[in-house]
Amino acid sequence: MEAKHPNDSKTIMTDLVLPSETNPLNNLFGGELLARMDRAASIAARRHSRRIVVTASVNHVAFKHPVPLGSVVTVEAKVSRAFKSSMEVYLDVWIDDRESGECTKANEAIYTFVAVDETGRPVKIPKIIPETDEEQIRYDGALRRKQLSLVIAGKMKPDEATELKALFFD
Amino acid sequence: MEAKHPNDSKTIMTDLVLPSETNPLNNLFGGELLARMDRAASIAARRHSRRIVVTASVNHVAFKHPVPLGSVVTVEAKVSRAFKSSMEVYLDVWIDDRESGECTKANEAIYTFVAVDETGRPVKIPKIIPETDEEQIRYDGALRRKQLSLVIAGKMKPDEATELKALFFD
Amino acid sequence: MEAKHPNDSKTIMTDLVLPSETNPLNNLFGGELLARMDRAASIAARRHSRRIVVTASVNHVAFKHPVPLGSVVTVEAKVSRAFKSSMEVYLDVWIDDRESGECTKANEAIYTFVAVDETGRPVKIPKIIPETDEEQIRYDGALRRKQLSLVIAGKMKPDEATELKALFFD
Amino acid sequence: MEAKHPNDSKTIMTDLVLPSETNPLNNLFGGELLARMDRAASIAARRHSRRIVVTASVNHVAFKHPVPLGSVVTVEAKVSRAFKSSMEVYLDVWIDDRESGECTKANEAIYTFVAVDETGRPVKIPKIIPETDEEQIRYDGALRRKQLSLVIAGKMKPDEATELKALFFD
Amino acid sequence: MEAKHPNDSKTIMTDLVLPSETNPLNNLFGGELLARMDRAASIAARRHSRRIVVTASVNHVAFKHPVPLGSVVTVEAKVSRAFKSSMEVYLDVWIDDRESGECTKANEAIYTFVAVDETGRPVKIPKIIPETDEEQIRYDGALRRKQLSLVIAGKMKPDEATELKALFFD
Amino acid sequence: MEAKHPNDSKTIMTDLVLPSETNPLNNLFGGELLARMDRAASIAARRHSRRIVVTASVNHVAFKHPVPLGSVVTVEAKVSRAFKSSMEVYLDVWIDDRESGECTKANEAIYTFVAVDETGRPVKIPKIIPETDEEQIRYDGALRRKQLSLVIAGKMKPDEATELKALFFD
Repeated sequence: MEAKHPNDSKTIMTDLVLPSETNPLNNLFGGELLARMDRAASIAARRHSRRIVVTASVNHVAFKHPVPLGSVVTVEAKVSRAFKSSMEVYLDVWIDDRESGECTKANEAIYTFVAVDETGRPVKIPKIIPETDEEQIRYDGALRRKQLSLVIAGKMKPDEATELKALFFD
Repeated sequence: MEAKHPNDSKTIMTDLVLPSETNPLNNLFGGELLARMDRAASIAARRHSRRIVVTASVNHVAFKHPVPLGSVVTVEAKVSRAFKSSMEVYLDVWIDDRESGECTKANEAIYTFVAVDETGRPVKIPKIIPETDEEQIRYDGALRRKQLSLVIAGKMKPDEATELKALFFD
Repeated sequence: MEAKHPNDSKTIMTDLVLPSETNPLNNLFGGELLARMDRAASIAARRHSRRIVVTASVNHVAFKHPVPLGSVVTVEAKVSRAFKSSMEVYLDVWIDDRESGECTKANEAIYTFVAVDETGRPVKIPKIIPETDEEQIRYDGALRRKQLSLVIAGKMKPDEATELKALFFD
Repeated sequence: MEAKHPNDSKTIMTDLVLPSETNPLNNLFGGELLARMDRAASIAARRHSRRIVVTASVNHVAFKHPVPLGSVVTVEAKVSRAFKSSMEVYLDVWIDDRESGECTKANEAIYTFVAVDETGRPVKIPKIIPETDEEQIRYDGALRRKQLSLVIAGKMKPDEATELKALFFD
Repeated sequence: MEAKHPNDSKTIMTDLVLPSETNPLNNLFGGELLARMDRAASIAARRHSRRIVVTASVNHVAFKHPVPLGSVVTVEAKVSRAFKSSMEVYLDVWIDDRESGECTKANEAIYTFVAVDETGRPVKIPKIIPETDEEQIRYDGALRRKQLSLVIAGKMKPDEATELKALFFD
Repeated sequence: MEAKHPNDSKTIMTDLVLPSETNPLNNLFGGELLARMDRAASIAARRHSRRIVVTASVNHVAFKHPVPLGSVVTVEAKVSRAFKSSMEVYLDVWIDDRESGECTKANEAIYTFVAVDETGRPVKIPKIIPETDEEQIRYDGALRRKQLSLVIAGKMKPDEATELKALFFD
């Protein structure tokens, strides 16, 4: 099974924000953005693994920039690291400014997917080889995030989470 | 501004899983569940604050139990702790087994909302007084989670995150 | 087959009113409320019978209170009486006032469901034992409503509709 | 204000039954049909009154014939009688049989709408002059149904409901 | 296989324009109108052929009249000509003016459908016999349009497109 | 007003085909694809013009390849030529094969948009300078297509449609 690059799974989903997706301040509901990102991330995970994929988890997501009704929103997803049968997918969300034509970063998010067969059992997937500096940073961070999630789930002792401890002591 | 109990904001959203919300394995998309939980959590936050509320963040969410097409899903949301203008909302997700009539826990999630005025500026909200043991545990954990999110966002030094360090050393 | 209480089937569906569900006065379409109530009632009927259920009829429904865009609407459904394979489900609809935090009754409705097997044939269901005064009143009324619907359908002679006649002469 | 015929408000809404509208037996949800009928009836009421209209009530509706996924469903709505500012709209629902090309009646329903101005206040509307026998029968029945709904709402004494009593004693 | 008239497939789809279907000028998205017309046309094609039908093509469509939010839109579809297994469906789109009660033509469109069996293979369908002058004109034009589409697809030499050349030289 | 390249407006919309968008053969409805392409094309037109844009027309579209339920569909849109205030947008539609990872072309389409101000009046837009061979071919074809549409609309005499005649005689 040949390793792949993050770009091999790159998925771009550009779409409008419609009235049925907005809150009382006329901004995109956080939950709608989470749903769009889940669909984009699942496509990236499927492109990497060529398998059926199911959402395993979504990392902490902060909503810093409101996304107004009528905006053009671009969700870009790439697999940042692959483990045995699970993959981390890193998402960047951009909004177009219609008048200036500029794109500004509105959000980042990290989802984890598991590749499964038709009966829902996990299957092996290709490794990831990062190419750019940013991809390398995200690749390295993926291990820390995996450890954090194992610690939180009680499946790893904090002592063993070597990468994670670096966050606090390095 | 009088303090409130978590039960004052309790919000129950029971609904069916429809075909347009399912993935190729005929289970509810992770993203759809995130969107439902966001709506339920926003109602709980609004009930606590009596204000317009916007999603600030969603905590790490793991999807352990697939939710099949046709299931009856119950999302229950309660404000677990209130800070100055932000609130943590704790969600429990249950699935009915149609034949046995039993309810099983399918998921938990934690969202943070900010109460704002009509112009989008943060406003002060009532405090929370936990009543049950579970509410107390969630109330205590809310501070640790806030610190973790401040550390990750680079707005708090790991050293100052006293509650969080307890996770690793207590 | 053991009898059950109305509370055993209690179903609460709280959700927002979104822009795609509103009429030119920016209030929830009557038809959308009917659809939400049908889903909530079907879940209550399923919880009582633990069977597949299909809508048999909806009683006369009056829409007295408009439900504005952005409202929080709570639909509460409970089985009020069970017959051989059909059940009456009684629904109460509430709207939150965001500022005062008060809940006001916006509507009531009564649906009838039939429990069926996988081939669509009616099956036997448990009886209902009312507990509160209100449940008793609704339980008693259910028989009159069943008679009225049989008379209207031409399946019962008005003379035999003893409960119904009471409406006009007692 | 000139009187009109039922045909002047005739509204036909033919559409497919899509997967997101079906229950576990793969038939159209009762609630979805109620929502479609509400939209069709509101258009008929608007065509009669040339005003904004809001749903006042829906009469007892029985669902006798399941409507399978993929069906072609035709909802036909006509104003059957106009009162001061309210109108009764009578609906017939038909299903196409694809292979034989025949149309069978799947349902009937009766909605009441009120014509209002931009502020939501009731306004006067034109009278109805029935033309066919069926329109005459529906026109006559409309008065009885109005009385029944007034009696049920406690706004008319059963004694005064002359048309309604005929149902039981003629 | 008996020939049929265009009226035998006549399909009327009247519905409202909802907020989730409108662009930043509050008019119906062109794409939403294309989707509605596709559903109406597919029903007309199915009524003519009594078969499963799939969209083969949509002719050039110009959007001359904006359709505002809240409009009542009527799409009327009739099969204008049938070939071996393909049919041309002609659509007229009308908008009600609420106050005057008048209907104005907002659009025309022409779709082509193919009748297929359960495996997706084309099947033979009945011929069309036009009745009115307009139906005759549309029937005649259908041949020219078929030739144009064959020329564009490179499946017919321009020289052989006798009907089409008439467009330029008659 | 500086001229731009087609790539400056490039818009990629990758998404899944969901059950609510499929026909009885479990393939994407033609009309749903038309609606997705309209949204993608409108974003490309907006990126080129930095204005509000409205759909003016859609060219002849042939649906050659069915798009099955669960597919990953990519719609790619670029402005191919700009006139005074109207733009032609050229779309390519691709489907991923999950197992092989290959992308196959499923469709092409051409939409025309007009840039308008807040009152809906046409405004001037930048020119296009094609860069690749394919962009040059599409740029040249845009003029012929514009002439064809003017001839069909009766706004240009066939004799004057010099580019179009070339289609038949060169």
